[in-house]
Amino acid sequence: MNDTIRYVLDEFDLPRAWYNLVSDMPQPPHPPVNPWTGKPLEPTELEALFPRAVIEQEISTEREIPIPDPVRNLYKQWRPSPLYRARRLEQMLDTPARIYYKYEGDSPAGSHKPNTAIPQAFYSKQQGAKRIATETGAGQWGSALAVAGSMLDLEIEVFMVKVSFEQKPYRRAFMESYGATCIASPSEMTEAGRKVLSDDPECRGSLGIAISEAVERTLDSGETNYALGSVLNHVLLHQTVVGQEALKQFDIAGDYPDILIACTGGGSNFGGIVFPFLGRQLRGGEAVKIIAAEPLNCPTLTKGKYAYDFGDTAHLTPLIKMHTLGSGFIPPGFHAGGLRYHGMAPLVSQCTDMGYVEPRAYSQSACFEAGLRFARTEGILPAPEANHAVVAVFEEANRCKLEGVSRAILFNLCGHGHFDMPAYMDYFSGKLHDQQYNEEDLGLALAGLPTVSI
Amino acid sequence: MNDTIRYVLDEFDLPRAWYNLVSDMPQPPHPPVNPWTGKPLEPTELEALFPRAVIEQEISTEREIPIPDPVRNLYKQWRPSPLYRARRLEQMLDTPARIYYKYEGDSPAGSHKPNTAIPQAFYSKQQGAKRIATETGAGQWGSALAVAGSMLDLEIEVFMVKVSFEQKPYRRAFMESYGATCIASPSEMTEAGRKVLSDDPECRGSLGIAISEAVERTLDSGETNYALGSVLNHVLLHQTVVGQEALKQFDIAGDYPDILIACTGGGSNFGGIVFPFLGRQLRGGEAVKIIAAEPLNCPTLTKGKYAYDFGDTAHLTPLIKMHTLGSGFIPPGFHAGGLRYHGMAPLVSQCTDMGYVEPRAYSQSACFEAGLRFARTEGILPAPEANHAVVAVFEEANRCKLEGVSRAILFNLCGHGHFDMPAYMDYFSGKLHDQQYNEEDLGLALAGLPTVSI
Repeated sequence: MNDTIRYVLDEFDLPRAWYNLVSDMPQPPHPPVNPWTGKPLEPTELEALFPRAVIEQEISTEREIPIPDPVRNLYKQWRPSPLYRARRLEQMLDTPARIYYKYEGDSPAGSHKPNTAIPQAFYSKQQGAKRIATETGAGQWGSALAVAGSMLDLEIEVFMVKVSFEQKPYRRAFMESYGATCIASPSEMTEAGRKVLSDDPECRGSLGIAISEAVERTLDSGETNYALGSVLNHVLLHQTVVGQEALKQFDIAGDYPDILIACTGGGSNFGGIVFPFLGRQLRGGEAVKIIAAEPLNCPTLTKGKYAYDFGDTAHLTPLIKMHTLGSGFIPPGFHAGGLRYHGMAPLVSQCTDMGYVEPRAYSQSACFEAGLRFARTEGILPAPEANHAVVAVFEEANRCKLEGVSRAILFNLCGHGHFDMPAYMDYFSGKLHDQQYNEEDLGLALAGLPTVSI
Repeated sequence: MNDTIRYVLDEFDLPRAWYNLVSDMPQPPHPPVNPWTGKPLEPTELEALFPRAVIEQEISTEREIPIPDPVRNLYKQWRPSPLYRARRLEQMLDTPARIYYKYEGDSPAGSHKPNTAIPQAFYSKQQGAKRIATETGAGQWGSALAVAGSMLDLEIEVFMVKVSFEQKPYRRAFMESYGATCIASPSEMTEAGRKVLSDDPECRGSLGIAISEAVERTLDSGETNYALGSVLNHVLLHQTVVGQEALKQFDIAGDYPDILIACTGGGSNFGGIVFPFLGRQLRGGEAVKIIAAEPLNCPTLTKGKYAYDFGDTAHLTPLIKMHTLGSGFIPPGFHAGGLRYHGMAPLVSQCTDMGYVEPRAYSQSACFEAGLRFARTEGILPAPEANHAVVAVFEEANRCKLEGVSRAILFNLCGHGHFDMPAYMDYFSGKLHDQQYNEEDLGLALAGLPTVSI
């Protein structure tokens, strides 16, 4: 029996800077656009929401952005995270592939999200904020920010989509355990929420409404910042600790990935593991094949359009150039809440548009099946989001077998599934159907994209 | 701000042998007694249940018992586990104490239980078993054995107390994710279960009944072993990887614990962290103050009698000399399922009887309060069982403050609370009452202890 190898780093190997892919991109990013003026957004327009340090990171072109010592010290609670060589899995798949995975499930919130929650909370605190307001859909982001808030002594207010608030009481209890306040959205607490409730008292909420409420709270309550868990450049930047550690661990393993795989929802997990390797390639280093694994039910990169669109359904955000299914697109119900987003991080979209990334979409039943095979072989039960990466790994490992070639495959196991048992229960009970999105709805959503000419 | 330090070991520091405390005890353990003959049990009498290697470990007097390479390799999936210096906690408590904790929550099951599930599964497999039958109350042990079974390709059958089976569907789904079969006990599958159900079709089950069913399945189905998650010597032996690693980590930290704290249910978590340090003391090394933290609702060490008793309520097990509340004692409802046991590991009981261990009992509301303060400072939300250790740590840290003395305190954080959100929710909603056990019931249960004279 070939057994799993765990590559462990000590605290001295924790990166001292985040890596900014923008510095190595052959073309600059497309700027966000103010929907009212049709002109590129001025960074100062964001100051009502985000701390200045975060805005600077959002537009920075520096290659390395130093990680403040207090953030590095808090990272050390669980970082560096382990890299595994999955030799048991290789044997089960009977593949010549060398399969590696980076594991982010040992964080206090059980996912990669604290990598950005902590610096965002730090910069808010540093600038004198007392509170951060945010929204959460499935609950991963709210959980991570709750942990960060408790570590940095900031109040956290989480507007949680009402349907999740009701269906996922454990997620809510987890946030409350860290002292966060969790509010079912739409709520009576904001003008936006009250308006929705007066139109429809039974409204179960949406991420769009929750964003509106969190933004309104931020603007109205003073000493309050807003924080986002994915999509934006600075969020992906913070996640690059993952890929940078993996680079060091590959040095120790004496290997280098031929293929990089990550699941994509808003893009932060993907950017975190991929960008440090892609940057090396862009600087003339080793080339890697990069695969973005997304759900067939919300196929942003495989079926979306690369265009300017709103980041939210309520059209409160700036317009950003990204792969999008249209902000009006509502994916059919499926169990990877972190991947239910109509858009994509602009940087991930740009990389895909330039041909650096091969996107692939997978059905959710294939993902659950792969995730369970992974759990029964490697021991760790993945979050449903991570299962999308696992099924892509199986596909590539099988290709290695068919071609008789040994390639090194690295993927990010972005979180454990301990909070996701209802999803696995639905899979076991056969309740989980691979409902296809409606082509006509997608066509309509895409037809409704705003016109931007800059 | 003083930040948490994480001491990480690499795989070469994973112990090569388990440490057997019996080798250093000044007196031999009291033998288990066959209740039918009143005579010490012959090891061969256990062969219908356990693999021979495990029985040999149960009665061994060797100091070191080598860990087989395949077990060590599977341990490496998450071991060595980290040791933390909780400097943020020290600061929050404003104490001169130096607080350390070993963390077992990064295991695939989220607790320390896989440390013994894996070797037990290994020895069963080695001896040709195809299946392990076991019982589980709260679900931690069943989960760990499910993980071990999937890694070692053994069928796992878990008889889960019906009330837990119904109240904790996520626990069941977790076991099923690893391919284990989970049966609500009492079941129609065994004679024992059928008998209970014919007397009372509405019976919600008990650990005693579940044990009877698992034992019956073991004896009846062939190629099947039984496995226990705590109490027995070999279980505590397997857990000593925890304390041995901590010894190495204290070397690195350049410190040594003055006070050791662990929660006690059946005793395996306690033995795992404490015995390697206690052994050193018994061999003339550094003396440590050892505190066993137990629930006020099930105060085995603080209020029990040190006497021969049955390990189960159905009186199917051998008689063992231990601290016991009487096998008929039923603790009031409380939320640390892993600590709801009327007895105690014989080795832990013997150490307590000899004065090496100071037992203390804590109310569950004090435990939850301490656990939440811990989570909000250190980032990790503890399992309710581990909260008993946390509250004892706070008490000792406060004593250091009052006396103006800096002492090093080590405790074992035996698991995370991600599966225990219902318990935290009950605490938040004020549903959790510190119900006192009934003194009269305890008196009756103790009066019913069997008479053994050997």
